[in-house]
Amino acid sequence: MKQPIDFYFDFSSPYGYMGAMQIDALAAKYERQVLWHPMLLGVAFKATGAAPLPLIPIKGEYSVRDMARSARFMGIPYKHPSNFPLATQHAARAFLWMNDRDTQQARRFALAIYHAYFVEDRNISELDLVLEIAQQNGADRNALSTVLGDAAIKERLKAEVELAMARGVFGAPFFFVDGEPFWGCDRLPQMERWLAQGPF
Amino acid sequence: MKQPIDFYFDFSSPYGYMGAMQIDALAAKYERQVLWHPMLLGVAFKATGAAPLPLIPIKGEYSVRDMARSARFMGIPYKHPSNFPLATQHAARAFLWMNDRDTQQARRFALAIYHAYFVEDRNISELDLVLEIAQQNGADRNALSTVLGDAAIKERLKAEVELAMARGVFGAPFFFVDGEPFWGCDRLPQMERWLAQGPF
Repeated sequence: MKQPIDFYFDFSSPYGYMGAMQIDALAAKYERQVLWHPMLLGVAFKATGAAPLPLIPIKGEYSVRDMARSARFMGIPYKHPSNFPLATQHAARAFLWMNDRDTQQARRFALAIYHAYFVEDRNISELDLVLEIAQQNGADRNALSTVLGDAAIKERLKAEVELAMARGVFGAPFFFVDGEPFWGCDRLPQMERWLAQGPF
Repeated sequence: MKQPIDFYFDFSSPYGYMGAMQIDALAAKYERQVLWHPMLLGVAFKATGAAPLPLIPIKGEYSVRDMARSARFMGIPYKHPSNFPLATQHAARAFLWMNDRDTQQARRFALAIYHAYFVEDRNISELDLVLEIAQQNGADRNALSTVLGDAAIKERLKAEVELAMARGVFGAPFFFVDGEPFWGCDRLPQMERWLAQGPF
């Protein structure tokens, strides 16, 4: 039995979205499962001194251009959101709760949240929208609404983020294949070689 | 007549080295010339708030691993230097002077400097080593030595760096194809598509 691939993403990350659109197909090609882990990049950025790309002088303008071009290069629909970045705690917590119950349902929810933000330019920081999209993807809206008001799910996400950082995750998308870390959609070709032939 | 590709590099940048090893062959494939521009990343980093990758918490450890793995992925010899980063003003100034006289000689010098640093682990911040490598690649050592002591070449490099930043260069390697910016070796596939078929 091959080890699953660990996939870390943040719902506010354009490249995280582009990674999410590709990882399951790539993994399936090499008969690997994928464990999806929501992450809060804001917390990691505090540790590394990083900032949301579009807000960085000089680099910011390039980044917005690169996000759209990279999406076109990979054949993924993309429209840079009018509000960027957004707080994504609600979506991340909802994902965790759904993922404990049905991993396939949870990743359909994740892709729908990404689509709402990076294609439809909707405000995914809003609790109502998160609940609506969760419900459309099979979640019990009332149960989820109660869960998201509890302290427990907040502590759970906090612990997940701390664990990710303890593993060395500082950006998104971030992957581990048999312990080897790969950061960014632009490392997917390296990851694919690793999946195909092992360490190089 | 097609526009030349602008290529910005810093002698202390591992990815700049990997870009330098590939750009001329890629450009030739699409019948493009390349204009090589030395850059000082330290100056750009002050504007963007960036820092040398290996010095950044969490991200640093990954970066050193990624540099070596990326080199293996691209089939380029690489040994992470014991002293990193280094001051590369002497080498950048020598390049400018040589490049005004003989562009082919200058890029052989550039590749030899990169090889000394990223394969042989030599200290390319030292003036004597820069002069030695320049001489081995056809420069008049005495003339170059005099030039490097003058204020004029220092002002020239400063102006080149300011011009690069005015164009939006904030990292290395950095390329422009018909005005379109590409940052990083990992954008070479996108750049190649652009060269092959134009804007996408």
